[in-house]
Amino acid sequence: MSEADRRVVVLVSGGPDGPRPRVHPADAPLLLADDLAAVRGDGCFETLLVVGGVPAKPERHLARLARSSAALGLTGPSDEQWRAGIALAAREWGPDSEAMLRLVLSRGPERGGAETAYITVAPVGAHARRARAEGIAVTTLSRGFPADLAEASPWMLLGSKTLSYAANMAALRHAAAGGFDDVVYLSAEGEVLEGPRSTVVVARGGELVSPPAEVGILEGTTLAALAEIAGAEGVPVRRERLLVTDLLAADAVWLLSSVTLAARVRRIDDVTLPPAEPPVDVAGMVDRAVGRA
Amino acid sequence: MSEADRRVVVLVSGGPDGPRPRVHPADAPLLLADDLAAVRGDGCFETLLVVGGVPAKPERHLARLARSSAALGLTGPSDEQWRAGIALAAREWGPDSEAMLRLVLSRGPERGGAETAYITVAPVGAHARRARAEGIAVTTLSRGFPADLAEASPWMLLGSKTLSYAANMAALRHAAAGGFDDVVYLSAEGEVLEGPRSTVVVARGGELVSPPAEVGILEGTTLAALAEIAGAEGVPVRRERLLVTDLLAADAVWLLSSVTLAARVRRIDDVTLPPAEPPVDVAGMVDRAVGRA
Repeated sequence: MSEADRRVVVLVSGGPDGPRPRVHPADAPLLLADDLAAVRGDGCFETLLVVGGVPAKPERHLARLARSSAALGLTGPSDEQWRAGIALAAREWGPDSEAMLRLVLSRGPERGGAETAYITVAPVGAHARRARAEGIAVTTLSRGFPADLAEASPWMLLGSKTLSYAANMAALRHAAAGGFDDVVYLSAEGEVLEGPRSTVVVARGGELVSPPAEVGILEGTTLAALAEIAGAEGVPVRRERLLVTDLLAADAVWLLSSVTLAARVRRIDDVTLPPAEPPVDVAGMVDRAVGRA
Repeated sequence: MSEADRRVVVLVSGGPDGPRPRVHPADAPLLLADDLAAVRGDGCFETLLVVGGVPAKPERHLARLARSSAALGLTGPSDEQWRAGIALAAREWGPDSEAMLRLVLSRGPERGGAETAYITVAPVGAHARRARAEGIAVTTLSRGFPADLAEASPWMLLGSKTLSYAANMAALRHAAAGGFDDVVYLSAEGEVLEGPRSTVVVARGGELVSPPAEVGILEGTTLAALAEIAGAEGVPVRRERLLVTDLLAADAVWLLSSVTLAARVRRIDDVTLPPAEPPVDVAGMVDRAVGRA
């Protein structure tokens, strides 16, 4: 089996008296046909990087998973059980190559029964490695709703990382068909929101700026880790509403995510961004945050 | 095993030379842990009623599934293969009780490989039987985007029946928490859209009216079947944009769906609707359309 085909699957059960996490054969089916993850996208997830066998910032991911599962009315395994599962999955994967580790929590089978919780591990894809090394071209797409919708309609789960990503995947296919690597979503008013799987951050003078969570976006774990390191080095990370023109006028723009890390934006639609070295070494700071440097 | 616990699962493979559909043990896992249905809600589905062992309006569902899968860039089994799978699943279920038969098409495992296509059959739930018999109370929720978004942003898949239903399920939980049975979505402008799993239709004088597909809603198969029968009896079904006040002023309002069929709306938020017999026997027409009468 080639490295690109390797997979690890770990089953995590809920409840304080549940069995310990255990490895599940990656080629054996795991989910019933009516699992609500599959037939309704009804659950939540997290994706984190494993570097040298060590999962990066697991506590930030567990905290966000807990927020998502609370918003969905799910219980989920305890953090302790997730930690044991993550450790087992990372150990099974081994230290030799970077991996994407995904936590999945579903409402369970439609016929009734316990929630489904498991972990998958897979190699980091070529797309992510290329985006880190070469940067990306992005297209802007309007999500069509106003920036204050998340606060007006909490039931829409805009700040939760649910399994219902069909529109996000469609946006990425739409971008690829136009020759772009990724997407920046805009609100109906033209405010910068986020990428389908990333957080937007810009360098402006000596500071970093990223849109606030209240515009209906996911709170980025990589942004939070970056903010901690940058803050300690005297570079504030401010949360401020941004327009596309703010991206074009910035010293540099990145999409941040847990697996791709910092992808420098080289082009936005038809506009090539200035190629100058950024005033803040965001990529280096993110590498340190996840233990890559 | 009680009737409520009975399940049938049929696996349907793609490609003209693929194996014939075959029964899969309902209690055995079917999906790999990284199937994109489960981890991304990346696929589409249809749900149809089985009455006396006969699937209702399968061709309308296959036509809509084909439109959804084309929008998602999926190939899917041929209609011939789906028909064989539906027939096998209905035969396995038997003629004795009404069932919900679901067609599921997913992009397949994230690691690569063929698309996943299968069928599940389960009993019609108590919620659906009660809604048919007693009617329902609905709450209105704004989806937050304008009615013309579907045409402006086809990549959002608004007219496709994708597996990414987390927000729909959350809307239904939100409604239930407020004492409501179901939801009517509104656009940002307050136009009536659809239910999370149903189509809105009203009786007004001697005609029926339902919002047009261009407002970013799913084209209802039950509405289409109703329109055929109603048209033959001299009752036109017009497609017209509606406001909430149009619902309140109508002679009667229903939510139509393939399994629940026609659920008469008795209350919209705080407003009780007139209980008079409707001028058009929508429930009877829908029953005939699906072979229940």
